Amino acid sequence: METYAILRDLAVIVICAKAFGLLARRCKAPMVVGEIIAGLVIGPCLLNIVQPTDFINKMAEIGVVLIMFSAGLETNLQELKKSGFAALIIACVGVFVPLVGGSLLYMGIYGFASFGTDEFFKGVFIGSIMTATSVGITVEVLKEMGYLKSRVGQTILSAAIIDDIIGIIVLTFVLGFKDPDSNALLVSGKIVLFLILSVIVGFIFYKLFKYYDDKHVHTRRIPIIAISLCFAMAYVAERYFGIADITGAYIAGIILCNVRDAEYIDRKVSVNGYMFFAPMFFVGIGLKTDFSNVDTSMILFSVGFVIVALLTKIIGCGLISKCFKYSWADSLKIGIGMMTRGEVALIITNKGLGLGIIDSSYFTAVILLIIISSIVTPLLLKYLFSKYPEKALTENT
Amino acid sequence: METYAILRDLAVIVICAKAFGLLARRCKAPMVVGEIIAGLVIGPCLLNIVQPTDFINKMAEIGVVLIMFSAGLETNLQELKKSGFAALIIACVGVFVPLVGGSLLYMGIYGFASFGTDEFFKGVFIGSIMTATSVGITVEVLKEMGYLKSRVGQTILSAAIIDDIIGIIVLTFVLGFKDPDSNALLVSGKIVLFLILSVIVGFIFYKLFKYYDDKHVHTRRIPIIAISLCFAMAYVAERYFGIADITGAYIAGIILCNVRDAEYIDRKVSVNGYMFFAPMFFVGIGLKTDFSNVDTSMILFSVGFVIVALLTKIIGCGLISKCFKYSWADSLKIGIGMMTRGEVALIITNKGLGLGIIDSSYFTAVILLIIISSIVTPLLLKYLFSKYPEKALTENT
Repeated sequence: METYAILRDLAVIVICAKAFGLLARRCKAPMVVGEIIAGLVIGPCLLNIVQPTDFINKMAEIGVVLIMFSAGLETNLQELKKSGFAALIIACVGVFVPLVGGSLLYMGIYGFASFGTDEFFKGVFIGSIMTATSVGITVEVLKEMGYLKSRVGQTILSAAIIDDIIGIIVLTFVLGFKDPDSNALLVSGKIVLFLILSVIVGFIFYKLFKYYDDKHVHTRRIPIIAISLCFAMAYVAERYFGIADITGAYIAGIILCNVRDAEYIDRKVSVNGYMFFAPMFFVGIGLKTDFSNVDTSMILFSVGFVIVALLTKIIGCGLISKCFKYSWADSLKIGIGMMTRGEVALIITNKGLGLGIIDSSYFTAVILLIIISSIVTPLLLKYLFSKYPEKALTENT
Repeated sequence: METYAILRDLAVIVICAKAFGLLARRCKAPMVVGEIIAGLVIGPCLLNIVQPTDFINKMAEIGVVLIMFSAGLETNLQELKKSGFAALIIACVGVFVPLVGGSLLYMGIYGFASFGTDEFFKGVFIGSIMTATSVGITVEVLKEMGYLKSRVGQTILSAAIIDDIIGIIVLTFVLGFKDPDSNALLVSGKIVLFLILSVIVGFIFYKLFKYYDDKHVHTRRIPIIAISLCFAMAYVAERYFGIADITGAYIAGIILCNVRDAEYIDRKVSVNGYMFFAPMFFVGIGLKTDFSNVDTSMILFSVGFVIVALLTKIIGCGLISKCFKYSWADSLKIGIGMMTRGEVALIITNKGLGLGIIDSSYFTAVILLIIISSIVTPLLLKYLFSKYPEKALTENT
């Protein structure tokens, strides 16, 4: 492909994402839903004007990294401390219930298997695909509605971050049975090491930024250094510690969220995000979807998979939230906010494919889950937040 | 390559571009020189931390498109009209002199050849590599010093744009001898058609934007629609009319330069440019350089090639500028501003390689020309502008 050919894709994606986004907003749906639908419409599913290329995937990766960095920058640390313990427990339950639910679904359809067999293992793997919440879409919706810094918003965000880490630990343990290279203890150690490293790097950079920032306000180099830190943390997390790059980016954001220029950095990052990279991520989900080779049994499994994946998160996260004195409406918001799945589910599926645990037909179910959760979550969240506005919001903004 | 691996390259490029850029500025050199040197240092030439990947090339392409779009947006149409005729003649002479100079250089070294022979043809091709000025670097320097909208700045910019088009016409004629698919008349017709199309599209979009802009000032969709137009024009120019994408982007910028929100669009485009894409372009030039397989005879030819390429532009454009009542200092500025070569020279070389006219060793000379002109031009321009400030500047800013 000639280099200039990407300009065509860019022009089409940028304008269609905006057009469908505005259309979605006019239909009272969040803009990201419009962007995903834009991807379905211009992609191989329908018009086939734009194909998902390697370049678009990479732009999308940058997009989701910037979204998470921006979310980190907007973190209210005070609120996170308040919601921290609740978030931890919500995340744990929100990993455990889908893991069990997914395993039972698989065994319910294909017959129960005793512990240790390949079939048992495959069931547990199906369950582990369901564990990791993809917070990107929820964050966009919460941001759009101004609830990101609210108590519910912060809880969802923290729980989703923690659940990513727990999900990766679970995956590591599950894969430990199969993959000789994957050592559960080693990987757990790596995760602990990464958190320690984050605290050290965080402390140093926070001090450096605070010192530098007080001398040079609003110079161009501040956001550039910040974004390099974000990319570096994201890369190091995934490359050396086996933690999702988006988690690294989020932590980079948290490191800088109390710096005086945090809002200035966020503004510069957001301009890049909304113009190029974020649309690439959301349109990209639609582009990657391909319904052409789906048969009846796969449809049935997929439907079951989606229902179990959504309900286990709502029930798991929702019920446990209620124990933490959230109202029923807020508990439901948390459960629904946690039910989006995204690239982590795809990465896990891909890993299982590479190790020969499952075959490629399972991608259909996962992609269906991503699309449905991406479309349904924003709609439900928007409905719930407008019907039951969060009381704490006025205190926080 | 895993998708997340690009984050490492991005982190390194973004931070090194800024660091070397600031270092260059501290040495009183323009920042772009620092960025090119950053590419040489972190690239295969020296440390080999970052390799020039397809992804970086594509980001660089977007970078140079955005730079040209931004230059178009900042065009002072009044001034362009004033400098238009002069620019046209300067461009013509600035194409003709290097074309002849390059041909003579080749024949001087390898022996004179009579018209129509392969050797004659190869000489003319070497000349045509030298024709197209790459205005990207000059624009960045002029912008940095605040002279982009000055009379000299506008003349250089217009002449470089026109010389791109003339360069492509020349190339088309030269290739017409060899390539059965390339019809000189057809391609000339395409160029004329593109200009007509630009006027029509320009008129429609200008009216639409003016209407829309007066109703919605400063909404996010304005820069997004503008940037889609830029990408679309760039793509259509290269894909359907054989005109460089950067020329299309520049014309898109000119179309919108009189819209009320032009400055707002430019600001949003520039944020994207300076944070990600522009550094990719300048660092990318350094990254692509490889001095490993260069022998003595190639070094001698390359030195001659660079000297002839630089001097023919200075003499050609400089002397003819003097005829248009520019002062000697301003004529020299124009000559030097026109001597940068860039991706167009590479594209032409690549085309000659594909058609079997020249072999790959000629890339060394072209890359050397690009690097030397990229480093020398900003230094000389900066020196000249500070020693002989342009008198017209105060009227225009």
